[in-house]
Amino acid sequence: MNDVIQSLILENPTKIVLLVLDGLGDLPNADKGGMTPLEAARTPNLDALAPNSTLGRLQPVAPGITPGSGPGHLGLFGYDPLRTIVGRGVLEALGAGIELKPGDVAARANFCTVDGAGVVTDRRAGRIPNETCARLVGMLQQGAARFDDVDVVLQAGKGHRFVAVFRGPGLGGEVSDADPHREGKPIPSARAQVLEAPHEKTARLVNAFIRRAGEVLKNEHPANAALARGFSARPHLPGYRDRFKLRAAAIAAYPMYRGVAQLAGMDVKVPGGETAADAFALARGVWGDHDFFFIHVKGTDMAGEDGDFDAKVAVIEQVDAALPQLMALAPDVLCVTGDHSTPVPMKGHSWHPVPVLIRARYGFSDGFTRFHEKTCRGGHLGILASKDLMAVLLANAGRLDKYGA
Amino acid sequence: MNDVIQSLILENPTKIVLLVLDGLGDLPNADKGGMTPLEAARTPNLDALAPNSTLGRLQPVAPGITPGSGPGHLGLFGYDPLRTIVGRGVLEALGAGIELKPGDVAARANFCTVDGAGVVTDRRAGRIPNETCARLVGMLQQGAARFDDVDVVLQAGKGHRFVAVFRGPGLGGEVSDADPHREGKPIPSARAQVLEAPHEKTARLVNAFIRRAGEVLKNEHPANAALARGFSARPHLPGYRDRFKLRAAAIAAYPMYRGVAQLAGMDVKVPGGETAADAFALARGVWGDHDFFFIHVKGTDMAGEDGDFDAKVAVIEQVDAALPQLMALAPDVLCVTGDHSTPVPMKGHSWHPVPVLIRARYGFSDGFTRFHEKTCRGGHLGILASKDLMAVLLANAGRLDKYGA
Repeated sequence: MNDVIQSLILENPTKIVLLVLDGLGDLPNADKGGMTPLEAARTPNLDALAPNSTLGRLQPVAPGITPGSGPGHLGLFGYDPLRTIVGRGVLEALGAGIELKPGDVAARANFCTVDGAGVVTDRRAGRIPNETCARLVGMLQQGAARFDDVDVVLQAGKGHRFVAVFRGPGLGGEVSDADPHREGKPIPSARAQVLEAPHEKTARLVNAFIRRAGEVLKNEHPANAALARGFSARPHLPGYRDRFKLRAAAIAAYPMYRGVAQLAGMDVKVPGGETAADAFALARGVWGDHDFFFIHVKGTDMAGEDGDFDAKVAVIEQVDAALPQLMALAPDVLCVTGDHSTPVPMKGHSWHPVPVLIRARYGFSDGFTRFHEKTCRGGHLGILASKDLMAVLLANAGRLDKYGA
Repeated sequence: MNDVIQSLILENPTKIVLLVLDGLGDLPNADKGGMTPLEAARTPNLDALAPNSTLGRLQPVAPGITPGSGPGHLGLFGYDPLRTIVGRGVLEALGAGIELKPGDVAARANFCTVDGAGVVTDRRAGRIPNETCARLVGMLQQGAARFDDVDVVLQAGKGHRFVAVFRGPGLGGEVSDADPHREGKPIPSARAQVLEAPHEKTARLVNAFIRRAGEVLKNEHPANAALARGFSARPHLPGYRDRFKLRAAAIAAYPMYRGVAQLAGMDVKVPGGETAADAFALARGVWGDHDFFFIHVKGTDMAGEDGDFDAKVAVIEQVDAALPQLMALAPDVLCVTGDHSTPVPMKGHSWHPVPVLIRARYGFSDGFTRFHEKTCRGGHLGILASKDLMAVLLANAGRLDKYGA
């Protein structure tokens, strides 16, 4: 499918905006008169767009599948999330703001407690404070940061958690966990799961790192050793420029989303704050140099995760209030949607399709007076797989040639 | 796709009910004011569920494809009916109530008439009465029931038809028909279509069976020989327990449906009668031991096949009247749908999508006051492939983990 799209790409001066309200989709909330946050929000600017826009719903991965943020965004960026696998370690590293380079292998790591015989007695080292984690990571950066020709890039996370990125020539990501996954067992050696030199090299260096970490930390308490799991190599994805001939900018306040966008070959930009207004201001600043703008707003997802209906409504209203700033740039194609649903009643991601609005010159005007989950059921787009959204946006931008004579 | 589902399965104490009204879907009937049977039926209990349920339509196989009962149910059970092939012989055997074992090869068979030179003069032996068929099958059971280490399990059907199941070690199902498919030709030898020992063994034994049948029947009139076709091995399908970690019960008055359910690894249960009330009573009896309940009601399909609008309405009303029995069990997820459409005006199966209703805690409440083909067009589920229904039911039961970080 994507090969077909790639073969049809045309270039023109159009500008496409993909505005993602993270976790936008929701359910009718019984205690709010059966309304969804998008339905309850006062959105005069979206309302003004709605009648002349195309509505519908996006299916992020497949029916019934609740996506994490990685698969959710990969779909929006035109990759099939069932075929484009971004490993746990890579997502964790991207989320920590580590800029991954080709060839990097990333892992999620923990500080843990081992007894004198090397048996893990607490996988989370008593859930040490963040400050302790940062101090211990500092110790490893001194004493366990290079093995042969490979650097280990470390970054402290919350409590017992940190990220380890192995950077150097000839590494592979198919390596088993150096983590027993339960107490009462010693730390297992990492092993290559594919018997080829790159994976074997990674396994060897991971084991050297874990050993050295144990030596460096041996007098610490309670965190006197380290575990690592979820090894994964930075995937090589064909990027927006090659696939779509688009100069793409990613504007996101949170590192995870910039990270996934960077995998897709976008130029990542950090707005001055977390609001839509901050993001739109930055879009104006980079408008001339790009054709495609992925703009990420996190607040809707956070409010959904908190089960806070009013907060989700407030974020949507903030976005709506700032929208004239974005419209003043006169994008040729504007798409407003989410990467997945995060319904308030569920306080978490869900499998429900996500409302989508596309405003473009030759879009089908659905004529609805509002944009929300219920009007979107009747929209022209029907239920569209997220991975196919890019093709629709390109088409609306006049950037896809006819297929066949 | 199914591997993904399998990798995300969670276990919890929820109960899922899949209530299948066979052939439920219909068309607006011009002589009934343009109503469908589901629309015309008085269904106060379904009406009470509708506003807080998710509606939509199921596509059993693919657009335009009219499914038989096998593919229709395989889809509902989460198998892709285009990839999961259950042979004719196997479906016939299941429909005859024969419990197939792994390794069994089943065939559809006919009594026929041959002349002195062995040429088939009537493939249906003058459409002999059922009693004659049963008597002749009895003769074969005496004289043609074992060849080498293989038993032939026989069961009389309607008129000239019967089922033959070859049971023994090392059999294969890739065997050509021992049936000329028209009069005026001799009975061809069965041949292995894949040149491997198991198929060759089956072909040899089939030919021995056909020869022996001719000897046993040679003095009978008009049925003095047998034909066999549609050889197929019992497929090995990954079952509900392995795929979904569900203890599944199949409650169906007709053997065919129990048979397909058995292929899917369900525990098959025979209700005391054919009505929904009988089935629901049995569901109550086995409620504690299972997590998933496939309940099959045949009457809607039979009424559709008969072109009897009022009879189809009556069956739907019977189901509705019994529904409180089922709801009293408080299933966490209730799905009401069909395996395909059997529109009254067509007197047969059709390709039209089938209305579906899902009632669950975190379902999207579509707010429609009734459940029928027309409201379902506007439902949240859109058009869903039947094979994806299981994922949606599992998601609604909280039995699917998030995909990706």
